[in-house]
Order: sequence, then C-alpha cells, then structure tokens
Amino acid sequence: DILQQFAAYLRPPRLAGKQIVITAGPTFEPIDPVRFLGNHSSGKMGFALAAAAVDAGATVTLISGPVNLSTPKGVTRIDVTTATQMYSQAMQCIEACHIFIGCAAVADYRVAQPASQKHKKNSQPLSLSLIENPDIIAAVASAEHRPAMVIGFAAETENLATYAKTKLKTKKLDMIAANLVAQGKVFGSDQNALQVYWPDGERQLPLAPKTRLAQDLMDLITEHYHAKDTT
Amino acid sequence: DILQQFAAYLRPPRLAGKQIVITAGPTFEPIDPVRFLGNHSSGKMGFALAAAAVDAGATVTLISGPVNLSTPKGVTRIDVTTATQMYSQAMQCIEACHIFIGCAAVADYRVAQPASQKHKKNSQPLSLSLIENPDIIAAVASAEHRPAMVIGFAAETENLATYAKTKLKTKKLDMIAANLVAQGKVFGSDQNALQVYWPDGERQLPLAPKTRLAQDLMDLITEHYHAKDTT
Repeated sequence: DILQQFAAYLRPPRLAGKQIVITAGPTFEPIDPVRFLGNHSSGKMGFALAAAAVDAGATVTLISGPVNLSTPKGVTRIDVTTATQMYSQAMQCIEACHIFIGCAAVADYRVAQPASQKHKKNSQPLSLSLIENPDIIAAVASAEHRPAMVIGFAAETENLATYAKTKLKTKKLDMIAANLVAQGKVFGSDQNALQVYWPDGERQLPLAPKTRLAQDLMDLITEHYHAKDTT
Repeated sequence: DILQQFAAYLRPPRLAGKQIVITAGPTFEPIDPVRFLGNHSSGKMGFALAAAAVDAGATVTLISGPVNLSTPKGVTRIDVTTATQMYSQAMQCIEACHIFIGCAAVADYRVAQPASQKHKKNSQPLSLSLIENPDIIAAVASAEHRPAMVIGFAAETENLATYAKTKLKTKKLDMIAANLVAQGKVFGSDQNALQVYWPDGERQLPLAPKTRLAQDLMDLITEHYHAKDTT
C-alpha cells in the first residue's frame, strides 16, 4: 500500500477531472428465453482499463456485458446483456465524456425474432435469421457531441493490421488497439499483446499481464488526449 | 465440521461403492473461433447433486460444460465445451456407472459448419444453418450396458408436466426432474423447485436452496435405485 501510494506520487493523476466511459465483456443476444448467441470475451481487458483509468485520476463509467468479474474500486458499473442495451447506455453517457474506450466484444448480429417460449426440438427451425446490431463505437465516434478521444478494439483471427487500420478509418476512431485471438488464446487469459494504431502512427505493446498492458495503453491514450485537447 | 460428521453418522452412506455420473452446466457450440451458441445454465444444480452424491458415499464423476464453479470435494471433474464432447465423455463413463444423472442443458443444435476464421461483418451470412446434436440422455438410457438408473432433467418455459412426461417415456428414462425456467429465473439462481416424475408416480420438491433440493432429489433417486437394484 505504501508502494502504491509512492507510485501514485511519482505518477500524478493526469486524467483528474476527466470522464472516461469504457465498454467491456461480451454481449449475449437472445434466441429464446434460455438460449443465446455469445462470444468468448472475458471482460478482463476492459476491467483492467477501468482500474488503470481510476489510477490515472479519471471518473470512470464501465458498461459491462455478462462477465464474472468484480467491479474495480472507484468505478461506476452499468450491467447490460445485449448489444442494443449497450448501445443505448453508451449513447446516454457520451455527452459528458472526454474519452470513450470500446473494449467490449459486441455481437455484430442479433436474432431477428427471439422466441418468447423455449424452442422445442421438433418445431425449431434449422436456421437462425440474423439482423445487424448497431455499431456502437462507430456511432459514438460520429455523434454530434463526440468525446475528444474515441478508442476502439479489434479482435481478429487473421489480417490483423489490415482489418484494424480499415476500422480505424471507416469508424472515424482516434486510436485502435488490435490483437490476434483464437479460442482458448487471449479470451479469458490474463495476458495479451496489442498492436495500437492511430491515423499517423502505431505502437507495439508486447505480451504482458492485462493489468500492465492496460496501464501502458492508458498512458498512450492520455498522451494523445493531452496532445489533442487544447482546452 | 462436528455437526457435519454427526449428520453423516445419522445418514449412513447409502450409495457406498456406487458409481454416479452427472452432467452439468451448458454446452457452447462454436460459430467461429470467437462466437458460439450458448444457454443460461449456471451448472449450480448439477454441482449440488455431485456434492450430495459424494455425501451419500458414491464415487462421482462430473462432466461439466463451461461454468464458473469450483469442483465439490471428492468429485472427479471432466471439463467439456460442446455437446459432442459431452456425449463422447458420457458414453465412455457409462459402462461402470450405476446411476447417470443428465443435469446439463445440452444444446439441441450446433452450427453445421463452424468457421475457422472470425466472420467479417460484410461477409457473414445472415442466417446460421444448424444441425441436431446427439441426444446424450436418450443415448445413455438406450445403451447396451445401460446404468440401472438414468435420470434426466427438463427445463421448460411452458407445458411442464406434458413435456416432462413425454421425455420420460420417449427417452426411456427412469426418472425426470422438471422445472419452469425463464431468463433471470432459476438459471443462475441459488433456489429452484422441481416436479419429479417416474413411470408410475411423481413428487413435488418445493422451492428450496439448490443444495437442499439436490439432497432431497438424491434421496429420492437412492430410494428408487435400491428398490430397482436387486443385485
């Protein structure tokens, strides 16, 4: 604790007075009352970023999908299940927000017509019709009262740099943190590596515990925020 | 601990020397390396049954889908993800098994062709083709070296008694424990109520903590096992 306080003394709170909104975890899209479409995001990276942002002196709102993690100290947490709910909560938060970090693995699609009763085997259709979910990070980055910094994540299984740079541009982000994922790797793991891109630069954050990686990424975000924010 | 030992003294181990196999939790069926079809089973009821079976003196193997629960003391746990994996593990266990309890919420369907790379938004089909998974409990109950008792679960959102009695008969089960479920109710909860059916009878186990309910159900299973087993 004394070491932590000493570390805090060496690193003055560079985000004091700043509002940061972070999304984390997966979204679950209902098929019927008991079944859903999900993904393997554990939420660990988003929760570590929230803790790092509090350490940097920011006021932090964490919009979380269904995860099994405890809320970091000092963080205001809003729990959601679906992409539509996460979108709605995110849009309500952005007006007062200085930095928005979209770390959640938001489902791109939801089931067109979730059933109100559990599908029975002999009556269940053999295909699920899907419709597109709102693109939360693109909506935040294109909003009228857009936060000064909007940072996205790209979890890819191939073509990491290409996909990430395309998302950075088409979604009008200020920065994107990209990582390679595969089942059993990264998702759920306590370690990760990130390739971070912004419109005129990039940086490699090598394999490290997610808590350490979150601090390094938050430092990078803070530098960019202060360089951009002239108020 | 003294109280526990005293309780154990009052209730002699009625399943000493018996092998019990229990499945628990959901199965997750891959769509691509990061997305899956899942369900809201928490695994709590199956894990409570495993603990109750150990208390009754049985040797217990617990085949569990992806859950966030610690293994009850004295239980051998086998972790699986998909219905196909659970089927394979279950079929390997049944020959030496006296009582099989299928408490897992096994996905009825899996994705016909899971993708090896993450689907991209603009290339992802707008419908998912599904194919039927093996019916684990029906396969166990119809196997040549079938356990003496095969107990299934039915989680329904409507028509509980009808669906449960139909499953009992068509799947050739010795007993079925049925409960009404809806999102946010039962799944994940620490309480539940069960309607238990066997070919010539039924019993209501009213709302109680899952640990208590598991003990009552295990007592009922034990009675039926000893009534049936004449060896």
